[in-house]
Amino acid sequence: MKSISLLGATGSIGQQTLDIVKEHPESFQISALSVGRNIEKTKEIIREFQPKLVSVLQEEDARALQKEFPKTDFTFGNQGLIDVATYADSTYLLNSVLGSVGLEPTLAAIRQKKAIAIANKETLVTAGHLVMAEAKKYGAPILPVDSEHSALWQAMVGEDPKSISKLILTASGGSFRDQTREQLKDVTVKEALNHPNWSMGAKITIDSATLMNKGLEVIEAAVLYDMSYDDIDVLIHRESIIHSMVEYHDTSVMAQLGTPDMRTPIQYALSYPERLPRPNAQRLDLAKIGQLHFENVDFERFRCLGFAYEAGRMGGTILTVMNAANEAAVDAFLHEKIKFLEIEDVIDRMMQSHENILNPDLETILHVDQETRKSVRSMIK
Amino acid sequence: MKSISLLGATGSIGQQTLDIVKEHPESFQISALSVGRNIEKTKEIIREFQPKLVSVLQEEDARALQKEFPKTDFTFGNQGLIDVATYADSTYLLNSVLGSVGLEPTLAAIRQKKAIAIANKETLVTAGHLVMAEAKKYGAPILPVDSEHSALWQAMVGEDPKSISKLILTASGGSFRDQTREQLKDVTVKEALNHPNWSMGAKITIDSATLMNKGLEVIEAAVLYDMSYDDIDVLIHRESIIHSMVEYHDTSVMAQLGTPDMRTPIQYALSYPERLPRPNAQRLDLAKIGQLHFENVDFERFRCLGFAYEAGRMGGTILTVMNAANEAAVDAFLHEKIKFLEIEDVIDRMMQSHENILNPDLETILHVDQETRKSVRSMIK
Repeated sequence: MKSISLLGATGSIGQQTLDIVKEHPESFQISALSVGRNIEKTKEIIREFQPKLVSVLQEEDARALQKEFPKTDFTFGNQGLIDVATYADSTYLLNSVLGSVGLEPTLAAIRQKKAIAIANKETLVTAGHLVMAEAKKYGAPILPVDSEHSALWQAMVGEDPKSISKLILTASGGSFRDQTREQLKDVTVKEALNHPNWSMGAKITIDSATLMNKGLEVIEAAVLYDMSYDDIDVLIHRESIIHSMVEYHDTSVMAQLGTPDMRTPIQYALSYPERLPRPNAQRLDLAKIGQLHFENVDFERFRCLGFAYEAGRMGGTILTVMNAANEAAVDAFLHEKIKFLEIEDVIDRMMQSHENILNPDLETILHVDQETRKSVRSMIK
Repeated sequence: MKSISLLGATGSIGQQTLDIVKEHPESFQISALSVGRNIEKTKEIIREFQPKLVSVLQEEDARALQKEFPKTDFTFGNQGLIDVATYADSTYLLNSVLGSVGLEPTLAAIRQKKAIAIANKETLVTAGHLVMAEAKKYGAPILPVDSEHSALWQAMVGEDPKSISKLILTASGGSFRDQTREQLKDVTVKEALNHPNWSMGAKITIDSATLMNKGLEVIEAAVLYDMSYDDIDVLIHRESIIHSMVEYHDTSVMAQLGTPDMRTPIQYALSYPERLPRPNAQRLDLAKIGQLHFENVDFERFRCLGFAYEAGRMGGTILTVMNAANEAAVDAFLHEKIKFLEIEDVIDRMMQSHENILNPDLETILHVDQETRKSVRSMIK
């Protein structure tokens, strides 16, 4: 039985993690979890999963819930996230909160030698150097949840990392993969949120349309698997059936394929080194799908991917700038304050004007993160 | 340094094995080898690879070669194959001879605890029960050379066999994959030998066109990986890029992909658990290929595949009958004595009239093999 601390229980990954826990009550239990503002959902989760500790965003929500659920402990705010992440009963942390708020809990859990199933991008994108160093120091495994990184991981099981020649991340191409750059100028929020394959949160769906999501994944892959950016390729694969591939130096390419169901990689992160059965999940039927398509990325049409390679190669606080600028710009787009292609312009401008600091500590990262968001907001208003 | 005994050095697999030995002189050497009647080619091989022992088909060839190469030992005939297979200096046997003549050397090498890289179909198809039992008893690893079985193997590395739910063998569909059964009636030998993806020997190219090759592979996969026939699927995949796949019970599908180059799986069989670099080999470029296609097999159009599932499920001497009848019928087709679709009729008739013997010993297998070939020859003349 694995006891799990789940950060971000009401989000998309969090909900699917709970599905997996429900599928395998003999293997997994939720000891502690964090939620945001969705208190009704939180009550349902508490009734069903009986966590011992729950963290909410607001103190007043914690107080109200405590009265209704006297057997559960409640905590709140940023300290609440750390309380959940480091909860003594848990051996696993699944971190699926959004944003840089996920950083400190990850580092705190690493220092408690918990296994970290990571779905929080910032952990690896902006603080990858800190996280991987601490994980090595404390012997805490860092396990990817993302389908692409899980695919790479599965394609590496039992293999010698020294024989890897290339990582090939597949990208659906997002909502606008067939649009020209000219057509991208006036796309609406609604159009952008209409992802062809995966059902995800709004921010990640926009990141998928700009390919920034793939850019962040390239950085995460470089950090997780200690690979050079020269040896990480992105391949447009519209059906999202091959979730990613590893090329070995003998020319063999190992791939993981599946239906677009995030619960499979979530489960793998929790069950590894075992695979647990998913008898009721949909199985891949390649004959029914019929064709898989592949094409190279057009770096002119998707500028964000180039930004990510650039920031990744540089390292340092430029990664935080890129990520924070993107988050703020996507937020502005979702609130219809800027146009779709202006997301790129915002990121570009913020990156251009930044003086990079290499090997930043957590405080510096969080400071640059806040400053960047502030700058973007004042730039847009 | 791995010392290899190579049976069938002048054949297609044998030649490509020599290419791999040439690519890695620091890892592999040929200690002993067998050839057929191609004595000029044999002389070249001896000069280049300096084997200590060489077996030829005919005694007179052995005598003549001995004079020319006094430092090499020569042997001949069926005993010669066993001499090469069990050669003391060798730790590996790569068996790529054609036909049931490959059986005894395999078993002899297993008893010497050599690692067996197996490209001889009969070893697993007709005597799989004997070979696997002996391999277990003597602790001799049986390593596949075939690209499909190598792909399955690579997709299983580091995995728990108990979590496998299905093996999916891909099939190019052969020379006639787009023809109707009506069109198949009058195809010529030349048309049949025109395989779309792989360059192979004549017999295996015809087997590829009838799908008997895939049928034999299904049986080999069942034997090698101890899988039920219900859990082995065949999928038509015209590009032959995904060489085969393993579905796990968590719905993940692991696949091995590559260019159609037999040298990669040959090398893997010899280098395992390592992968050795192949810097000059062509690398897979999926964007260039653009599309991969998949469809289910039409068992009405390709009757041989159904024969193989039927014989495999039955077990016993029916497997030898099917294999020997196929070899004799393909030989008759190549000599233009029967038409393409009559290959199926010959196999069907021989299987129908056979009284099956379960768990046959080697003598019985070889006897049934001879009798079946005799019957086919008298049937056709």
